[in-house]
Amino acid sequence: MSEIPYKIYLEESEMPRAWYNVRSAMKVKPAPLLNPATLRPMTADDLRPVFCDELIAQELDDTTEYFPIPEEIRNFYKMYRPSPLVRAYCLEKELGTPAKIYYKFEGNNTSGSHKLNSAIAQAYYAKKQGLRGVTTETGAGQWGTALSMACAYLGLDCKVFMVKVSYEQKPFRREVMRTYGADVTPSPSMTTAVGRKILEEFPGTGGSLGCAISEAVEAATTHEGYRYVLGSVLNQVLLHQSIIGLECKTALDKYGVKPDIIIGCAGGGSNLGGLISPFVGEQLRGEANYRFIAVEPASCPSLTRGKFAYDYCDTGMVCPLAKMYTLGSGFMPAPNHAGGLRYHGMNTVLSQLHADGLLEARSVEQTKVFEAAERFARCEGILPAPESSHAIRAAIDEALLCRETGEEKTILFGLTGTGYFDMTAYGQYNDGKMTDDIPTDEDLARGFASMPRIDI
Amino acid sequence: MSEIPYKIYLEESEMPRAWYNVRSAMKVKPAPLLNPATLRPMTADDLRPVFCDELIAQELDDTTEYFPIPEEIRNFYKMYRPSPLVRAYCLEKELGTPAKIYYKFEGNNTSGSHKLNSAIAQAYYAKKQGLRGVTTETGAGQWGTALSMACAYLGLDCKVFMVKVSYEQKPFRREVMRTYGADVTPSPSMTTAVGRKILEEFPGTGGSLGCAISEAVEAATTHEGYRYVLGSVLNQVLLHQSIIGLECKTALDKYGVKPDIIIGCAGGGSNLGGLISPFVGEQLRGEANYRFIAVEPASCPSLTRGKFAYDYCDTGMVCPLAKMYTLGSGFMPAPNHAGGLRYHGMNTVLSQLHADGLLEARSVEQTKVFEAAERFARCEGILPAPESSHAIRAAIDEALLCRETGEEKTILFGLTGTGYFDMTAYGQYNDGKMTDDIPTDEDLARGFASMPRIDI
Repeated sequence: MSEIPYKIYLEESEMPRAWYNVRSAMKVKPAPLLNPATLRPMTADDLRPVFCDELIAQELDDTTEYFPIPEEIRNFYKMYRPSPLVRAYCLEKELGTPAKIYYKFEGNNTSGSHKLNSAIAQAYYAKKQGLRGVTTETGAGQWGTALSMACAYLGLDCKVFMVKVSYEQKPFRREVMRTYGADVTPSPSMTTAVGRKILEEFPGTGGSLGCAISEAVEAATTHEGYRYVLGSVLNQVLLHQSIIGLECKTALDKYGVKPDIIIGCAGGGSNLGGLISPFVGEQLRGEANYRFIAVEPASCPSLTRGKFAYDYCDTGMVCPLAKMYTLGSGFMPAPNHAGGLRYHGMNTVLSQLHADGLLEARSVEQTKVFEAAERFARCEGILPAPESSHAIRAAIDEALLCRETGEEKTILFGLTGTGYFDMTAYGQYNDGKMTDDIPTDEDLARGFASMPRIDI
Repeated sequence: MSEIPYKIYLEESEMPRAWYNVRSAMKVKPAPLLNPATLRPMTADDLRPVFCDELIAQELDDTTEYFPIPEEIRNFYKMYRPSPLVRAYCLEKELGTPAKIYYKFEGNNTSGSHKLNSAIAQAYYAKKQGLRGVTTETGAGQWGTALSMACAYLGLDCKVFMVKVSYEQKPFRREVMRTYGADVTPSPSMTTAVGRKILEEFPGTGGSLGCAISEAVEAATTHEGYRYVLGSVLNQVLLHQSIIGLECKTALDKYGVKPDIIIGCAGGGSNLGGLISPFVGEQLRGEANYRFIAVEPASCPSLTRGKFAYDYCDTGMVCPLAKMYTLGSGFMPAPNHAGGLRYHGMNTVLSQLHADGLLEARSVEQTKVFEAAERFARCEGILPAPESSHAIRAAIDEALLCRETGEEKTILFGLTGTGYFDMTAYGQYNDGKMTDDIPTDEDLARGFASMPRIDI
């Protein structure tokens, strides 16, 4: 076997030509989305006013194994993909571990994360349907940036509702979106009925993701030629993000490497799901035996402390219900939690895999996450996003275990993005002012109380 | 010939193993640095208290053709290099030009620019000499970040004097440096004699690069085991940056591509010099016929409106004198100029090449630069640094000329870095509040008046 280089780049000709739909391999399929009005499974017709037609088809399809990637999307991918699969030689040395560590780095594009993989797909189908534009919400701004880039490339209008407090505190992200021609509105705003209502009720509020979602959905359904798009949680997003895992597998196969452990951070599940999809497929077909680990923040522990039940996907309770691990749509993670991954629920595929015992989960505290981030940055060069650093923490912990046991395990983790726009959080950590804020059982009980009382 | 991919990545085994010293090919060598006290050429002994020994040897050597790259530096390079050579298919389509455009992208690392190529080299030689640490100054923070990363990797102490106004206005850059363990001091500071003197004279001053240089040099010479390092202007920096051009040439040769025009932005000259070095070598040996274009800001036009003469390298007039194109060390570019490249002089090699007619120069206004930057970002995805965007502007202008004439020229330009930390400037541009601020002849006269009256 030839020596493993620091970075494995696939050739353009080796890039995946189809996305992999992991649901096709699952014996127990993820439970269907429910219509909040009727409590019956959502149909394509139910979804059509809000989402693009082809994306609805992808969302509801749990049998088709592969979806061909349209050529225009593949060409866009070629501008920033294949992303490198990196052998973390320097981290291994720093840890003194016999483990072999690999990470798939998705941060080498202007959006700074893997979000672009699905943004271009969703924008493409909107364009193909002849729409004028798309609407979405964004918190910190990663998804909004990715969508702005995709829309600029395709000449599609892009309306982003950005949580007002982030709009004001993160002016740089906002400026990036504007540079890509997006229309960025601080939410709540006077441009929607729901925004005006919230502003009347709570004048001066800094907004929330739930409120921004409601505004984006309203804007999509009240403007001719617009649809709403979303950067995580949905199964279509997992499908698009399978490009991460597919590239990974091709690169590892070239060098005859089989990982023992595959680790990803988990908020809504887009990155973790995309990374592990093809590997899970192998496992479900009985062709491999991997350990999959989801890493979530201790301050928002949906998989490790949540319930597996039907719940609202959004705080505003206008979106469909999903059966997932959830803390309740009313759960609010501590405000000083810097690491993203603040979603109260989890994608339904990943939830089902966890319920079936295929996907482990663990939670980590944010000071431990930033400690790992800094250690990683100093030896591997890359300054990781706080979200991604959850996976780094778990990878380091597993590698240190190997140092104790002497096992030469192969660890693969997803490095979803860079932390260039998260320096306020790094500053807090550098100044020793970061706290962990783990929710108490009472905090969780308040969240669970917001869940629907449905017996299905 | 096989089809050109969107991105050409060299294999690790194809990466350069030696830096190229373009001075070795020059018939008229760049004039030597002069000792400001004696006005005689600086000797290694003169430089030894300030610079590392091996770097002095590289600085003074104008005959050795290749310097082998030590293995430890090559390993560090493998973490973020080879950088991609990109075929700008989308930009070509957007411009409707028959020209073929390539760019070498140096921004895919945490420092966000090519500066890391020399930072690791300079830190390595300091470590090899058994030093405890290095000192430097930084304005916007790119060089300081790069040096912090290199020092963290090698376990070397790093003292950065950051211009106070940037320290306060760019807290994110500062935080990145701190995350890599650097000691960042706002300049002027009370930690040096020169800093205390300036603060006494101008209480509340926001500092300047000249002042920060003086503090960094003082800190290096008054702390046991420290030396001063610099990210541009010096010939050693051009040598290290030749990695850019060498990789470029190898990648183009693989596909049988010969550029007609090679374009780079020019401040102190580190990127432009590194990019063109191997191509200039070819040209000087009579093996090729390229057009080389240096692009500088109209607000700081050293090559296009400066004088070719001996001048001080720093505002404090403590550093050696260099024969270069210069606006005078007292020249101050307009404060609202956002695009970096604010140095009053130019590296001596590039100055000599320009004087010899081998290197063209043009200046561009900053609103035109940001217009090009935004156009580029929207079709090629990458959000470019304002500095790099000077080269984009010229490349677009040349490609548009080709559209008029129908010529299928091959254009290569250097894309030195990303603009993630420059969003305030993009915001100004997006808001239509950016101005051009071209210096008047009187402004230039004031700068020239600060030049030494030396007859050599």
